[in-house]
This record gives sequence, C-alpha cells and structure tokens, in this order.
Amino acid sequence: MSAGKIYGVGLGPGDPDLMSVRADRLLRNARHVAFFRKPGRSGQARKIVNGMIPDGAVEFPMEYPVTTEIPLDDPRYNELLLAFYKDCAAHLKTLSEQGEDVVVLCEGDPFFYGSFMHLYSRLRDKAEVEVVPAITGMSGAWTATGDPITWGDDVLTVLVGTLPEKTLAERMAQTDALVVMKIGRNIDKVKRALKTAGLYDRAWIVEFAQMPNQRVCRLSENCEGITPYFSIIIVHGQGRRP
Amino acid sequence: MSAGKIYGVGLGPGDPDLMSVRADRLLRNARHVAFFRKPGRSGQARKIVNGMIPDGAVEFPMEYPVTTEIPLDDPRYNELLLAFYKDCAAHLKTLSEQGEDVVVLCEGDPFFYGSFMHLYSRLRDKAEVEVVPAITGMSGAWTATGDPITWGDDVLTVLVGTLPEKTLAERMAQTDALVVMKIGRNIDKVKRALKTAGLYDRAWIVEFAQMPNQRVCRLSENCEGITPYFSIIIVHGQGRRP
Ligand SMILES: C[S@@+](CC[C@H](N)C(=O)[O-])C[C@H]1O[C@@H](n2cnc3c(N)ncnc32)[C@H](O)[C@@H]1O
Ligand SMILES: C[S@@+](CC[C@H](N)C(=O)[O-])C[C@H]1O[C@@H](n2cnc3c(N)ncnc32)[C@H](O)[C@@H]1O
Repeated sequence: MSAGKIYGVGLGPGDPDLMSVRADRLLRNARHVAFFRKPGRSGQARKIVNGMIPDGAVEFPMEYPVTTEIPLDDPRYNELLLAFYKDCAAHLKTLSEQGEDVVVLCEGDPFFYGSFMHLYSRLRDKAEVEVVPAITGMSGAWTATGDPITWGDDVLTVLVGTLPEKTLAERMAQTDALVVMKIGRNIDKVKRALKTAGLYDRAWIVEFAQMPNQRVCRLSENCEGITPYFSIIIVHGQGRRP
Repeated sequence: MSAGKIYGVGLGPGDPDLMSVRADRLLRNARHVAFFRKPGRSGQARKIVNGMIPDGAVEFPMEYPVTTEIPLDDPRYNELLLAFYKDCAAHLKTLSEQGEDVVVLCEGDPFFYGSFMHLYSRLRDKAEVEVVPAITGMSGAWTATGDPITWGDDVLTVLVGTLPEKTLAERMAQTDALVVMKIGRNIDKVKRALKTAGLYDRAWIVEFAQMPNQRVCRLSENCEGITPYFSIIIVHGQGRRP
C-alpha cells in the first residue's frame, strides 16, 4: 500500500466558480476533507464548498482551541496553538500512512497568511504534501471595487491590522497601492492610521469579497451594516498609464 | 439585439489546471478571443490556453506597436501606446455593439499590473465589462518555491524591477516579505538592490511559474540557464508562527 497525499487546496475568495479547475476536481473526488473552524462556527473555508463534498466523504473539522479569549501575547496562547497544530498534523499524517488522500480546505491562497502553513511546516518532511495555489482574498476584493490595484511602477504594500498604529501609518504613507487584511477589532486603529497617512479618502472596504453577502463601500462614506470581521481594505494605485 | 459583454478573463500563472472554473467555462464557449502579444511572438496569455479555444472562434491578436525599441520615457512611446489601446478598445466595443461576447485573455490577475487595465479604463463606461480575477503570477511563484510567503504580522511589499535602484533598495530594506515583478533587463540592478538591503541570500527567482518550463532557484546559487524575462523574485517572510 502506498502512502496517501495531503493536499492544501486553496479555494479562492469565496465563489465556488472562482476555484481552480484543479481544486474543483480534487474536492469532488475527495474521501477525506479537513478544515479549520472556530468552535460553534461552520468555518469560512467549509462554507465555500457547501454542497460540493461528495456523499460519504469523511469530514475532519479542526477546531481552534482559542481565538480571541486569550491575548495574542499571552504565552498560554502560543502553547495551546502549538499543541493544536501538532495534533491536527498527526491526524493527517496517520490518514496518509493508511493510504488515504486528504484535502485540506484553505480560504484564499494557502501560502498567503493561511492557517494551513502551520500544518504544512509540520508535515512537509514527513508526508507527501501538495499545495494548490488560489485566488487571494485581496484579488477578490480589488476586483469587487471595479478598479485596478496597481499600474506601471506602483508599489503595493500588504499590511495586517494587528500591527501597531505607528507602523501602519508609516507604511501606509510610503506606498502607492495598499491592502490591509485581518482587520476585525483593529478597524478604528486602521482608520486612524489611514487618516494620518492621508489615504482615508481613497480607501475602500470590501466585506465577504466574491461571496453572496459581499459588500463594497468607500470608508469615508457611511458603510452602515459593514462589519470588519471578514473584510479587506483597499487603496488603489494611481501609477503611470498611457 | 442586445449588446455583447466584454470579459477580462484572468488565466492565472500558466497551468490551465489553475484557471478558475469560470474562466475555463467562458473560454470553452468563446466566439471571440482577444489577447496581447509582441510582434513575432505567440503571446504569454494565448500560449496558456493552447488547445482550449473552440473551433471556429475568431481570434483577435492585439500586437504591441513598441516594446523595448523606444525607451519608456520617450514621449513617442506613450503616443504610440495611446493610439494602440484606443484602437483595440474601439474594436472590442464594435464587437459588443454587434451583440458579440468577447473574451480578453489576461495572464495572472487582470487588475494586478495587467495590460487589460488599459482597455478596461477605456471601455468601462461604454460597454458591459466583467473582470474575472485569477491566481496571480506571484502566488504561482511562491507556491513553486515550496515555502509560504507571509506569516502572522509580516508586511509584504511588491516592487517592479523598473524602479530606480535606490528606491528598490530602500523599500526592500523595510519589508518582511518581498516580491519583485517585471525584472527582465533590470536583473543586475535588482540584484544590487537586494544586496544593499541584505536580502540577496534569502532571494529566490522563479521563471515561468506553474508552466511546463518552470525553473526555481536561489539567486545566490548558480541559476544557470534562467533568463529573467518572465520571472519573479521572492523573499519569504519570517513572521510569528506557533
Ligand atoms: C488568515 S487570513 C487568510 C488569507 C487568505 N489565505 C488569502 O489568500 O486571502 C484571513 C484574512 O483574509 C482576509 N480575507 C480573505 N478572503 C477574504 C474575502 N473573500 N473577503 C474579505 N476578506 C477576506 C480577511 O482580511 C481575513 O481577516
Ligand atoms: C505585466 S505583469 C502582469 C502580471 C499579472 N497580471 C499577474 O497577476 O501576475 C508581467 C510580469 O508578471 C510576472 N509574471 C506573471 N506571471 C508569471 C509567471 N507565471 N511566472 C513568472 N513571472 C510571472 C513577471 O514578472 C512579468 O514580468
């Protein structure tokens, strides 16, 4: 019996029609499907493929032990996550040793701030792992705004909302085009940084890009009802264009 | 008769299996297919879809009037390109007025440094245009290196090789993760900037990412045979990871 393969499959921003042909095929033939989720939630990646997982496939939800209950800088946070990733990786490895292929669902592109990376780094030397790249959430978001993100010589900077306000403002002030990910409860800090950097009036927020509940709004307008928890901020480049 | 639609269809980095399900469907049902190419070349985007365009579809190659013969800062360069984009846009508009749908092939994601943007800005108010996002060349490239690009709080900076050496080195020195696009004849300048910024030893070059002729190499090793003309440089982030 030969060992099974572990696939880290990027699903793209959310519309199943934007999955790659390869991801679509792997998923429709899957026998084991693993995915991360927060306790009590269905999981962003799992939601994307609703109705696409074959009957009889075994699902393996990997439930985060902590999310926001413990602060990021508490050493217990790290310990809990370490043990969690270790357990998940061990389970996937066992399946592959039993000759089973496993599809791990990843929102967006797996190698771009993806949770799968924590399994990948633990499995890459112990099992056959294949990563299927995908459309990032940010590509989904800038497409949703209807305006290109970078022209000519534009510099693009991607930041996460968890950075300190000062760092955010400094980086924002230096770039032509901007993407801010992982906003959530950092939204007010991110907005202040955008103002300091003089970018606030050009900034858009896209919630649930390429999903049925997508919302696109200029930050400076009244974005009533937009929550920042699964959203991306976009500032378009203004570079050279003939 | 209703007007046709113009689709700016991202094809992803190069493997047809990495096209989105939507792009695949649009292409296989296309009656008109437009794409950019340099004179005497088949065109990077057109090559990706070899064998996928239906029999009887009309192809419209849009041949750049100039590429590298005239320097970028020569005003004639801009004038020629302006007229070229105007002509191409007019042709697509005519087709759509005749009720025909047109698929415009775009390598990578159309809104990320894509040539299609120059048609889009001319057509968006005059015709129905739909943009299909895609996997970027850089996602294809970092996946090919086998290492994730960004972890935790990593800042990602995307630069183009056409920037001045000083700008390149300054931006490189400030980022956690780096992507450099449009390298070509700027390769030596980009290498010097990487050295100044202290990133040279961590830099990878990926030529023809996700294509049959893909080459992946650390810059500091002997990358014999790699030409920089369709390549991306990658420096991976080293951010927080439990
Ligand atoms: C852990 S990161 C994963 C990023 C993902 N791997 C990618 O390629 O986009 C999660 C963050 O991605 C962003 N994100 C990803 N997809 C999104 C979408 N479709 N709409 C809005 N935000 C999205 C949000 O900022 C969210 O906080
Ligand atoms: C005009 S830009 C178009 C970028 C494209 N729209 C994207 O999303 O990647 C052309 C540059 O993209 C980069 N590129 C795009 N796809 C690539 C691939 N598959 N392999 C290597 N380089 C690629 C190269 O640096 C090239 O000079």
